Amino acid sequence: MSELRKDPIVGRWVIIAADRARRPSDFEPEPARPRLTSCAFCAGHEDTTPPEILAGRPPGGVPNGPGWTFRVVANKFPALRIEGDLEPSGEGLFDRMNGVGAHEVVIESPEHTASLATMSVDAVADVLLAFRERVLDLKKDARFQYVLIFKNHGEAAGATLEHPHSQLIATPIIPIMVGEELAGAATYYEMKERCVWCDILRQERRSRRRLVLDADGFAALVPFAPRFPFETWILPARHRSAFEESGVDELRALAGVLRDFLGRMNRALNDPPFNFMLHSAPLQEPTPDHFHWHLEIIPKLTRVAGFEWGSGFFINPVAPEDAAAALREAGG
Amino acid sequence: MSELRKDPIVGRWVIIAADRARRPSDFEPEPARPRLTSCAFCAGHEDTTPPEILAGRPPGGVPNGPGWTFRVVANKFPALRIEGDLEPSGEGLFDRMNGVGAHEVVIESPEHTASLATMSVDAVADVLLAFRERVLDLKKDARFQYVLIFKNHGEAAGATLEHPHSQLIATPIIPIMVGEELAGAATYYEMKERCVWCDILRQERRSRRRLVLDADGFAALVPFAPRFPFETWILPARHRSAFEESGVDELRALAGVLRDFLGRMNRALNDPPFNFMLHSAPLQEPTPDHFHWHLEIIPKLTRVAGFEWGSGFFINPVAPEDAAAALREAGG
Repeated sequence: MSELRKDPIVGRWVIIAADRARRPSDFEPEPARPRLTSCAFCAGHEDTTPPEILAGRPPGGVPNGPGWTFRVVANKFPALRIEGDLEPSGEGLFDRMNGVGAHEVVIESPEHTASLATMSVDAVADVLLAFRERVLDLKKDARFQYVLIFKNHGEAAGATLEHPHSQLIATPIIPIMVGEELAGAATYYEMKERCVWCDILRQERRSRRRLVLDADGFAALVPFAPRFPFETWILPARHRSAFEESGVDELRALAGVLRDFLGRMNRALNDPPFNFMLHSAPLQEPTPDHFHWHLEIIPKLTRVAGFEWGSGFFINPVAPEDAAAALREAGG
Repeated sequence: MSELRKDPIVGRWVIIAADRARRPSDFEPEPARPRLTSCAFCAGHEDTTPPEILAGRPPGGVPNGPGWTFRVVANKFPALRIEGDLEPSGEGLFDRMNGVGAHEVVIESPEHTASLATMSVDAVADVLLAFRERVLDLKKDARFQYVLIFKNHGEAAGATLEHPHSQLIATPIIPIMVGEELAGAATYYEMKERCVWCDILRQERRSRRRLVLDADGFAALVPFAPRFPFETWILPARHRSAFEESGVDELRALAGVLRDFLGRMNRALNDPPFNFMLHSAPLQEPTPDHFHWHLEIIPKLTRVAGFEWGSGFFINPVAPEDAAAALREAGG
């Protein structure tokens, strides 16, 4: 079983997943991945994945057979496992707990070459509804404080499989980065009695310099101080703290905006590898007035090196205003 | 001129270096770098770099000519520039200032194929003494709050040139990651009246499970909760908060330990790309009792993907105890 360990200085937890273990000799820097001759996520290969937790099928469809539009399955090589108790313990001044959590894969389409940028809006909306349903289900488990929904697309962005998919990991603690957003937003709210994301959106709508899209209740904007070139946030225009409280109509609108944005990004940047990460309010707390859920999208265009790892300072070679203009001009 | 911008939610500053600007069409994901036919850092090419700030030469040697053992020059494509005032200003709720700082390159050897792992201990010590001298000089400039010394080795670790070199960037604010270490260590000190790194080292020396080297007043250890496989910290065994206050003998001892460690890492991991980053106390504050300078070394073996970027949670597939054992066994 993997283990959670806490850095005693900055309080950052890490997952030591040594049951995925490799010996030192197994580390070839950035190994070339063998091309798979068959894909475990393609239609017809349902028996090569763990049994499905959720799927899109016509009425009367049989689980774990063909005929689906999306599937959610447990990750075959999970970073955290669903079984067991946390059993927090110490080792001198250090803190650890068992690697309890959930790690699921959302197979977004039966088609190997599909993508959220080119699927129908209905099919993208089904994926977002699957995210919502999985979060609502995992939220019932009181061991879990947070679910991070994310996507790695392309090998350079950390994807190990080509087939279109996203992932979710439920964690027994609130991740440090979400905790920092919560704390910063709470401080702002104390001063202003307003949500900082609502204020940002208001200002960006006035200046329009960093706004990419503003439609159907969702905005896509390049943040004022992004870590990465072309980093973009998509957020609901009205204050909403928890993604899983979104209605079907809202998620359908989000599907249209997300699909539109990804098409622009692909045209502007020649189908880049990318990551997205959904930040929503913690699961087990009353939904806060100061947190506003948002999707962060980062194309993988630059390398992160010693300066960034040592300082947390990022060097971004593209002005956000230029990135937003390029994405606006890349409309389909 | 580049610009510093602050994220209004988490307070993280970024450098928008749009004068290094590239158009969107210039971004090919992870472009293949052309092999240079001649290297600007090699002996005999002194006129292709900015004039030297510091160099190792025999008595009577002429600056910017051959005959040197190391050179420090300004970075030709600096992230921050030495000229000008910070001129902090606002844009609605956002904060910015001019990209004022210093960005220097330490060319560690005249030999293109040299490395800190194979150079003589004296030559490595000269590089460390150059770091110290540059920090002491930059510290006189009251605009600078911090100097981060770091190294990118190998293309996958962000190096753009093969020739052995390290860099230093002086920043007008304390980087967020150093600020987090300072804050965490101050909290620990308030509770215990002891330095957290001193306590960690005491515990690691007792158990020896994560200790790699312990010699001549320096220890190399794999931390309890490392973000990356084989991440290692080298720190002085006695409490020292500011690197630049190290004596010549101390830096010579550090040179021996660093060289020994890098040799072990290269043998255990087949000459991996790597980064190192030196964390020292801020420049313009009295040296604190709660901060202990240390060098963080991270071989680049895994990819950072959506989960890490979205959560700050890192998945490390190698138990620190196994990494330390492999590095101990890789003694030369």
